[in-house]
Amino acid sequence: MKYIKLNTNESPFPPSPHVAERISGEEARLNLYPDPACSELAAAAAAALGVGPENLIFTNGSDELLNFAFLAFCDAERGIVFPDITYGLYPVLCEMYGIPYRKIPVGADFGINPQDFFGIGQNVVIANPNAPTGLVLSVSDIELIVRENPGRVVIVDEAYIAFGGESCVGLIKKYDNLLVARTFSKSHSLAGARLGMGIGSAELIGYLNKVKYSFNPYSINRITLLAGLAAFEDENYYIENCKEVIATRERVKAEIRALGFTVTDSKANFLFAKSDRIGGRKLYDKLRQCGVLVRHFDVPGISDYNRITIGSKSQMEAFLDAVRNIINDREIIK
Amino acid sequence: MKYIKLNTNESPFPPSPHVAERISGEEARLNLYPDPACSELAAAAAAALGVGPENLIFTNGSDELLNFAFLAFCDAERGIVFPDITYGLYPVLCEMYGIPYRKIPVGADFGINPQDFFGIGQNVVIANPNAPTGLVLSVSDIELIVRENPGRVVIVDEAYIAFGGESCVGLIKKYDNLLVARTFSKSHSLAGARLGMGIGSAELIGYLNKVKYSFNPYSINRITLLAGLAAFEDENYYIENCKEVIATRERVKAEIRALGFTVTDSKANFLFAKSDRIGGRKLYDKLRQCGVLVRHFDVPGISDYNRITIGSKSQMEAFLDAVRNIINDREIIK
Repeated sequence: MKYIKLNTNESPFPPSPHVAERISGEEARLNLYPDPACSELAAAAAAALGVGPENLIFTNGSDELLNFAFLAFCDAERGIVFPDITYGLYPVLCEMYGIPYRKIPVGADFGINPQDFFGIGQNVVIANPNAPTGLVLSVSDIELIVRENPGRVVIVDEAYIAFGGESCVGLIKKYDNLLVARTFSKSHSLAGARLGMGIGSAELIGYLNKVKYSFNPYSINRITLLAGLAAFEDENYYIENCKEVIATRERVKAEIRALGFTVTDSKANFLFAKSDRIGGRKLYDKLRQCGVLVRHFDVPGISDYNRITIGSKSQMEAFLDAVRNIINDREIIK
Repeated sequence: MKYIKLNTNESPFPPSPHVAERISGEEARLNLYPDPACSELAAAAAAALGVGPENLIFTNGSDELLNFAFLAFCDAERGIVFPDITYGLYPVLCEMYGIPYRKIPVGADFGINPQDFFGIGQNVVIANPNAPTGLVLSVSDIELIVRENPGRVVIVDEAYIAFGGESCVGLIKKYDNLLVARTFSKSHSLAGARLGMGIGSAELIGYLNKVKYSFNPYSINRITLLAGLAAFEDENYYIENCKEVIATRERVKAEIRALGFTVTDSKANFLFAKSDRIGGRKLYDKLRQCGVLVRHFDVPGISDYNRITIGSKSQMEAFLDAVRNIINDREIIK
């Protein structure tokens, strides 16, 4: 069966056609190492973001950036805190590197209370929008968390920021303890190319580069460097794609709410939803039988929910059809 | 000035033309994540090497494999040993991860004495051929080291094995504590694509996969997966390139020996040489002034030497011309 994949938050749109132009012929130069400083890409990103190249680091996806940040800023004495419902990589990294961590409970509505993160005495990582809930914090809330943790590093993981949240990148000039993590996987249709970016004070970026140069300075290949450059050169293409994802998300959100689902106010390229008629795992299984893959988390507190990536319009129609059939089936036992 | 770059051991040959065919059109699928298991590549490699896919792991260059291996098999209680003259990444990884390490002195001729590595009570990593000396150990010597360290992991870094050494991959069926590291950067002209490979018992590979899946399961992008596949499909192209590098190496080796250089019997794609007329750092500087970059190590014991990548025939003629001019200059003071 060929599944409709709404389970890994990929973009339904191919990268800009400009990517093909940019990478054309580069395969003949693959015998040469890539530029470890990613200078050309850094110049383009710096211009786009209004920061200096010294405020930027590029990595093999944002997962590699998070690895470098945990290695650079945490150790057995300096742990890290994060919301109890968030991206699953954070505790995995802590376990791997022997970093103590603490999960701070989100509210009953999955909301993050900024004050819970004030003066925490540890580093902090917050995904904004959070995953898998899609809920956002305002820039002023983020600023309070950064300001109230002087001497600690606050990592704001903006993997999904292009779908409706407001970026806190502007704060890096004011606070030297803020690191913003970005990925080109979602909004820029480059999940298959592996490109992530860190934005922060020159001091933080310097520490991250020390890890990068110890670890694997060449982790971004020559073709991905060019694909990233093409992304900055054709930004409007991606802005339009994100607008379409947002419009589809809002439409599907309204549709499934009308079907009795509880849906968070996600500002990401996915929805997080539970039905009043069928359990989360059961809906996941039934959708799979219908050829639609979504993401279920067998985790206390969210096991009634599924995370549904916003795909193309036709994929979402297929999803909605499947959901209607499933919840109208008389044999359903919640 | 446009330098002749003989300082980073890249291949002078572009990748096989088949790479361009393989990756054509893949840019339109870069919105989708790559296959983290690298299944197609693993099947091709397994067939080529006569091992099972369960004996293989693919990484972002062999540097990432070494990272994973140090994380998986070493910790504060279980250190690692390596020759005192070898690849500079090994101590860097130990420092980064807090792994105790010990350097075992090579001989006056830079040779590694296998017995120095018997029953060492720690893990072992040996580059074979070694870098920057290019000297090889025989498979029987490697086997003794593996056999005499039961319960410890012996990593054999075969980055340069295609240029004249004999691979120990055949031993992985006999010894479950042997991990062989390979890269596609040198012999397969893919330094710019980032592809490495580990070969070992299913048990060792299982531990490495645990780290890979914690760290960054998608570290190899979609285009590099196809470039690696093309490499296996056009193996003869690379075999011929390696033969040419070997022939050039032997010719240049003879030429500079005739000019009074002491040159190790390198079986890699580089030479390691010192002049009887000019110091290592001075030769490096003079070559740079002539537009030729080689690699000088400001390290006790080898500072008289330079490492010279084997480039194309014309690059090596330019190198030899520059060397002749430099050492015939009457003003040289060693």
